[in-house]
Amino acid sequence: MNAQARLFDRIRRISILGEATGMLHWDAAAVMPDGGAPARAEQLATLRELSHAMLTATETADLLADAEAAETDPSALARIGLARRRWHRATAVPGDLVAALSRAGSRCETAWRQARADDDFATVLPFLAEVVARTRDEAAALGQALNLAPYDALLDGYEPGLTAADCTGVFDRLEAFLPDLLGQAIEVQATRPEPIPLEGPFPIADQAGLARRLMVALGFDFHHGRLDVSAHPFCGGIPDDVRITTRYDEADFLKALMGVLHETGHALYERGLPAALRHQPAGEARGMAVHESQSLIVEMQACRSREFTGWMAPLAQAAFGGAGPAWSPDNIRRLVTRVARGLIRVDANEIAYPLHVILRFRLERAILSGELALADLPAAWNDGMAASVGVRPDSDREGCLQDIHWYDGAFGYFPTYTFGALMAAQLFAAASAAVPALQDRLASGDFAPLQGWLATNVHAHGATLSWDEILRRATGRPLDVDLFRRHLERRYLGD
Amino acid sequence: MNAQARLFDRIRRISILGEATGMLHWDAAAVMPDGGAPARAEQLATLRELSHAMLTATETADLLADAEAAETDPSALARIGLARRRWHRATAVPGDLVAALSRAGSRCETAWRQARADDDFATVLPFLAEVVARTRDEAAALGQALNLAPYDALLDGYEPGLTAADCTGVFDRLEAFLPDLLGQAIEVQATRPEPIPLEGPFPIADQAGLARRLMVALGFDFHHGRLDVSAHPFCGGIPDDVRITTRYDEADFLKALMGVLHETGHALYERGLPAALRHQPAGEARGMAVHESQSLIVEMQACRSREFTGWMAPLAQAAFGGAGPAWSPDNIRRLVTRVARGLIRVDANEIAYPLHVILRFRLERAILSGELALADLPAAWNDGMAASVGVRPDSDREGCLQDIHWYDGAFGYFPTYTFGALMAAQLFAAASAAVPALQDRLASGDFAPLQGWLATNVHAHGATLSWDEILRRATGRPLDVDLFRRHLERRYLGD
Repeated sequence: MNAQARLFDRIRRISILGEATGMLHWDAAAVMPDGGAPARAEQLATLRELSHAMLTATETADLLADAEAAETDPSALARIGLARRRWHRATAVPGDLVAALSRAGSRCETAWRQARADDDFATVLPFLAEVVARTRDEAAALGQALNLAPYDALLDGYEPGLTAADCTGVFDRLEAFLPDLLGQAIEVQATRPEPIPLEGPFPIADQAGLARRLMVALGFDFHHGRLDVSAHPFCGGIPDDVRITTRYDEADFLKALMGVLHETGHALYERGLPAALRHQPAGEARGMAVHESQSLIVEMQACRSREFTGWMAPLAQAAFGGAGPAWSPDNIRRLVTRVARGLIRVDANEIAYPLHVILRFRLERAILSGELALADLPAAWNDGMAASVGVRPDSDREGCLQDIHWYDGAFGYFPTYTFGALMAAQLFAAASAAVPALQDRLASGDFAPLQGWLATNVHAHGATLSWDEILRRATGRPLDVDLFRRHLERRYLGD
Repeated sequence: MNAQARLFDRIRRISILGEATGMLHWDAAAVMPDGGAPARAEQLATLRELSHAMLTATETADLLADAEAAETDPSALARIGLARRRWHRATAVPGDLVAALSRAGSRCETAWRQARADDDFATVLPFLAEVVARTRDEAAALGQALNLAPYDALLDGYEPGLTAADCTGVFDRLEAFLPDLLGQAIEVQATRPEPIPLEGPFPIADQAGLARRLMVALGFDFHHGRLDVSAHPFCGGIPDDVRITTRYDEADFLKALMGVLHETGHALYERGLPAALRHQPAGEARGMAVHESQSLIVEMQACRSREFTGWMAPLAQAAFGGAGPAWSPDNIRRLVTRVARGLIRVDANEIAYPLHVILRFRLERAILSGELALADLPAAWNDGMAASVGVRPDSDREGCLQDIHWYDGAFGYFPTYTFGALMAAQLFAAASAAVPALQDRLASGDFAPLQGWLATNVHAHGATLSWDEILRRATGRPLDVDLFRRHLERRYLGD
């Protein structure tokens, strides 16, 4: 084997350790009994340490250098370059810091689950303080190695190339119109008849059955994946065995259902990654912004559309044996495009969602810079919500304890949700223009045109293009906030 | 850190890789979609390779030597000795032989599945010949390194310290009375009324509910474990998160239930292993014979007793809404202690089971020594069954093709089942003598006295004592076949 083959064999083994880690993470969230948590934290930390050690070993550096020196083909060099980038990020952070971060995150996540249940921010505060301290160390080390500002170095870990300047530019433009648009949408909605609530209870088994039915229609293959339950829904596993989770509410089936459709968008991206590049950085999903564009193009663009809800309404009605006007396609469409000022990000409508993200972006930058003391986080959160979304939480459970991210050590992640939403609007507009029948076909539950276009224009690229290049090639232009604005105006201010 | 601390840190990481492997193995058996199998095989192989490489690395040998040289305390030296023993076993077999064994086993197992389905021993014969040849090489290499006879080196891999001489001594004594006892038990049974069959179907959810109820009574802690479904029931996971599986039959709830109670015995052993020695060889379960003693003391000694079935019968009746004399405690006891001459080991009653094992022990020794040509195995099997159990298979499917073990390369494993059964009888007699209320308490579903005694006298030792020492300390004497005989006579020839 030459250096490049040996390099990619090594990278492959590191990738497989990552697969094992991902599966154990799914297990912890979906099926593990609570008493297994401390041992699981040690398992995850050990696997990450080993993987880190393999990536940062002298042999890897030597193989990288030898492979780079021997290769002339640009696309092969680009694939090696992605491995080099990963090596850069890994060598920047010392092994004991990697282990400390992992352990702090696992412990804090466990404490957070209890703290959220008890609405008791104080009990998780020391664990969060440890996570923040270690994250600052990490951001400083990464920033130095990558010649990036510390926060940009964190962002880069979720969506390579995305910067705080990108965020500030886009978020300022969004903040210039979203609060007004939210108010207008609520006003327009008030002039129309209230949607009729769907009366439950909706048995969980029936919800799961309907969810599976729609997943299959979207193209999810249950020979290569599962749907389970966890406190915080996510898409995990590996491309050949994608594990998505949801949480059911017997009083409201639409919440879980839209969540499942969202995670299915993630799952289809993973499943569609280029198999020929499996176990190489180039064969992985690009970043979290691109990932979110794939979940949101399914959930927000396709599945809250008039076409899709028209197809889905009778299936839902049959699944729950519903009767009456509440089950009309139009009523269900109005239910899934209902706009309100709410406290919870994951329940937010697509107009308010970016405002939730922008608040978190501002707060996490202030936390990391030390400008905001953690003890002051609850108040700052509540003030921020009142100012942008127009509602103030009564409890931290509905405030700064609502999301797992920070407690699990994920700083720099939130902005990717909104970049994903903007990309989704832009990609859906481009796909609809390229495949004229695309939206009509959704009206008969046929996702093949949309998924076919996404498979070619997004999924098949893996990580060989940047988020920005994927968007430019697929849509012919850079990120355009106006396409998102137009989508919202059409859906919420139109007829 | 001194050499010993560094040694055990290394051993700890190897052990945690083993935990991850165990969890992924559970996942593959219990929840993985079929399309995930190829990727999972790569994950398991990669984790095993890494773990093997860490154990056999020069650093491990150096740390072992340094730790041994620096230590004088006998119990610390014994703990190091167990790590040394593991290193010996790992380094004794050359890497290419390990690979050849694994390949031969995989191929033969695949061929066996087809051969069993087709009842065609001839097609698997060449594959089995390859497994046997490589197993002979392995046994020779291990025997040389450990200063053991080849077959003893294989036995030692399943229950350290167990020898062919132990087996021959015990098995000769068993063969002297078991065939007669089996005949007598069948005669006695014929003088009594036939047990009334329980009429199903028994819904799986109700079976699972009952199984969980009994598991809790036995002391299983669902904060530290799960019960799931798999094709082949097993006990997996780790001491703090024990995963047991079963398979349900809607027509017969007793089969799955007794299986769950068996696996719960394994689970309680794992759960009771000494936490202070976690991630060291000394803190692990002793061997497969001791493990089987813990499943059989629960299943055979406790849960097929008159006391337990008296308590369990009304719970089962309530779980399935049963009515009539079939649900009487006495009828259920007769159902779970029914004796017959059968061809299949896994369905055998506790009198016949050792006869199945003894036949396999004799045959596998003759195969490995070359005394028995593989082509003559089917006839030798059938003659052996006719002579000891008193039934002759009509097909190899119900004969020498029934068990996976040999085809998968597991020679030297079978004897541990019977050593486990004998130890279970002896430990139960000792526990009953030490805690006079123990059997009465089972009649009210109270397992605390039995489990308390086992926790102290078996579980807490981990692997710090040999199987023989555990038995001597707990019962005051070496393995005594008469205690097993007395148990069988009381249950099957008594009133």
